[in-house]
Amino acid sequence: MVRAMKVRVTVMPKASVLDPQGVAIRNTLRQVGVPAATAVRAGKVLEIELEGASADDADLRARLETAARDFLSNPVIEDYRIEVV
Amino acid sequence: MVRAMKVRVTVMPKASVLDPQGVAIRNTLRQVGVPAATAVRAGKVLEIELEGASADDADLRARLETAARDFLSNPVIEDYRIEVV
Repeated sequence: MVRAMKVRVTVMPKASVLDPQGVAIRNTLRQVGVPAATAVRAGKVLEIELEGASADDADLRARLETAARDFLSNPVIEDYRIEVV
Repeated sequence: MVRAMKVRVTVMPKASVLDPQGVAIRNTLRQVGVPAATAVRAGKVLEIELEGASADDADLRARLETAARDFLSNPVIEDYRIEVV
């Protein structure tokens, strides 16, 4: 079906990469009443509105994958995932 | 049930607030083969691991809400949502 749709691209630091922002947030959470917090990873999220697009358009999906890999993330240190929401 | 759980806090610019980063990403997407992109909002996401916590602990939930409102987001210009994942 062709209609308005929304795609969410989430970019997170790879598990093997140190995330100082996440560590700082974890430490603060533990001090402000959430002592159960053992680890935090901080990433970014992009909510993309698409008009006249179809969720089962493989070509669009491939172009979104290319964009996510080539300029929305740094694949050396980050992983991304793409979801239709 | 008490166990390890993961909470995701997503912080997005409010709809009424200009998001220049989102606009720049939308313009680039339109140039690199995703002309259907009409709007992009750029936010941040925090994945929080909790040990010995329960998804139905109302007190923990309240403390996470407080943390999200008071220091994980800027409520003047941002909205947040908290999900157990």
